[in-house]
Amino acid sequence: MANGNPGSGLQLRSLIKAGGELELSLAKVDIPDPAPDEVLIRIEGSPINPSDLGLLLGAADMSTAKAASGAVTAKVPEAFMRAMAGRLDQSMPVGNEGAGTVVAAGSDPAAQALLGKLVAGIGGAMYAQYRTLKAADVLPLPAGATAADGASCFVNPLTALGMVETMRREGHTALVHTAAASNLGQMLNRICLKDGVALVNVVRSREQAHILTDIGATHVVDSTSPTFLDDLTKALIDTGATLAFDAIGGGKLAGQLLGAMEAAINQRATVYSRYGSSVHKQVYIYGGLDTSPSVLARSYGMAWGLGGWLLMPFLVKIGAAEGQKLRQRVADELKTTFASHYTAEISLAEALQPEIIAAYNKRATGEKYLINPNKGVA
Amino acid sequence: MANGNPGSGLQLRSLIKAGGELELSLAKVDIPDPAPDEVLIRIEGSPINPSDLGLLLGAADMSTAKAASGAVTAKVPEAFMRAMAGRLDQSMPVGNEGAGTVVAAGSDPAAQALLGKLVAGIGGAMYAQYRTLKAADVLPLPAGATAADGASCFVNPLTALGMVETMRREGHTALVHTAAASNLGQMLNRICLKDGVALVNVVRSREQAHILTDIGATHVVDSTSPTFLDDLTKALIDTGATLAFDAIGGGKLAGQLLGAMEAAINQRATVYSRYGSSVHKQVYIYGGLDTSPSVLARSYGMAWGLGGWLLMPFLVKIGAAEGQKLRQRVADELKTTFASHYTAEISLAEALQPEIIAAYNKRATGEKYLINPNKGVA
Repeated sequence: MANGNPGSGLQLRSLIKAGGELELSLAKVDIPDPAPDEVLIRIEGSPINPSDLGLLLGAADMSTAKAASGAVTAKVPEAFMRAMAGRLDQSMPVGNEGAGTVVAAGSDPAAQALLGKLVAGIGGAMYAQYRTLKAADVLPLPAGATAADGASCFVNPLTALGMVETMRREGHTALVHTAAASNLGQMLNRICLKDGVALVNVVRSREQAHILTDIGATHVVDSTSPTFLDDLTKALIDTGATLAFDAIGGGKLAGQLLGAMEAAINQRATVYSRYGSSVHKQVYIYGGLDTSPSVLARSYGMAWGLGGWLLMPFLVKIGAAEGQKLRQRVADELKTTFASHYTAEISLAEALQPEIIAAYNKRATGEKYLINPNKGVA
Repeated sequence: MANGNPGSGLQLRSLIKAGGELELSLAKVDIPDPAPDEVLIRIEGSPINPSDLGLLLGAADMSTAKAASGAVTAKVPEAFMRAMAGRLDQSMPVGNEGAGTVVAAGSDPAAQALLGKLVAGIGGAMYAQYRTLKAADVLPLPAGATAADGASCFVNPLTALGMVETMRREGHTALVHTAAASNLGQMLNRICLKDGVALVNVVRSREQAHILTDIGATHVVDSTSPTFLDDLTKALIDTGATLAFDAIGGGKLAGQLLGAMEAAINQRATVYSRYGSSVHKQVYIYGGLDTSPSVLARSYGMAWGLGGWLLMPFLVKIGAAEGQKLRQRVADELKTTFASHYTAEISLAEALQPEIIAAYNKRATGEKYLINPNKGVA
């Protein structure tokens, strides 16, 4: 077996102590040689997605962050400690997805074939210099792609494709997306433009609206505009969208989406029904940018649904063969439809610096940070 | 054709005028002879269900009701007129379901076979002396049953059976029901006791709890108790219920149900997941006793759904053959599982008297009124 296994490497750890303190640190961990069906990847890029921040920072108040001998600590407000009960005093690795070079491989031919190749993977613990994965689970990157190109090729691309696939499977013909100027939202626009799917983009500022119209979005409505509900209803009449994916979660927005869908449908109604239209209207909440309660006025009849949506259960539901089709499309269009852009590339050590944490924890629309765990390491 | 068609009869009408006034009146309408596949029924009992009150009274403020020469009028508050837009200035018949005697029948053998029989039907316009229906759509009542026994044999029985059937089809094994001391809730208890389905009953007073324990309910929790959330969670641990049907709609209850389900599931969890449990938790809102907004804290992970549930779309979804099985069960157990009890039997004229409207519009738990459109008519 060709063996580029260094024997040990750094891994970022997140720990919330029962006393109410978050500690981020770098642990030196042993790296076993890969099993016959495994490969060892030197991770060269791993994004900080909103879904990573939840595990990384927990409920800590990062305004209290203090650097302390290669680590950083912050206080977790007492009110949120109950929600952290399931992870107390467990040092947890972080990082959903990443890409890098296969430096060691098990004896199976499928593993050996990947040696030296640039691959992407998903499965947690990617904020680390090295990560072992099953050979069958990694995605070889196409010629010309870099680790940065491939680092984000699971979560955002499969989430965006999953939204369009959910639309088709549940009998809808057009989509609504909120927080639509995000990296994910821009990707969804490229998919919908390519596939001819009408997409209503809901944004929270004029600047965000410009980001989307600049990349060719047709329907962009600003929730801070005084004409928001009318603009939204008009876009829903134009597109016929009866399915929305909402990254905001809190406040009135999810209910407003359902209400505007119903108003758009009723523009075409000819018979009065006291139960509202019989057309099913659905909103899936897949993020929680606003953690306040969702408030639903229920002024949209009885044919409606609201629920959580997560990528992994969706992939389980559609099965391995359909999932592989989506992954192949991501690889085929990695530099176009699924291109990612990063605000900055940081090292593991930089990921623990309070001022850099403050930057990536802003979750500013369109900004995204990439950790390169092998940057600045001897 | 044997013909007991009187040629005309009284029909209750609900009209909301563009000027903001509700008018209930009795119209004398012509009654055509039934087509070959139809029967003409003399309606002898039709219940006032919560679902009928929405169409009957609209958004009118019934404290302003005034009797006026065989009719009654009431004001519709300006704020609610927009929601009434679809029905303005249309005189609408009312009454979802009812039972009575077939007094005339079309020439088809299936219609002729029903002549003189006591049958039940559904389809609106039942607050009338006579109603024509397709012979194929009526349910002949079993020997010994009265029109009052059969008057409510569609909406409540099929809704209760639909809840249990939805539970089975969507992979749940136990149920939660709110406003559980209602006629419907008592019926659901009888079904669940008979079928061995665990049912968590949520009520809003100790008196309501007693109604249910008196008929053999095992799990009864009172939402006005200071220990409500703990009691609910314990009942959910005991039963494993992950599906609720909620008649309340507004306020925090639907979210509390989802949160308590998650807490019950997490009692058995061994691994921390920042997305919450992967067990799907579902609440269907099928009524709106509280018309205020639903407030969801979303503290129950991502595997959850909330939505509207209505009987008719459910029956369409399961298809005619499955629907017929449910109807047959209702007929077979009409005097036991599906027995209904009425607070009072009123005539069409009495249904227009302000003090009687005030009584049936209270929607008091366990109270139900029956209109007999042929009571007190010469």
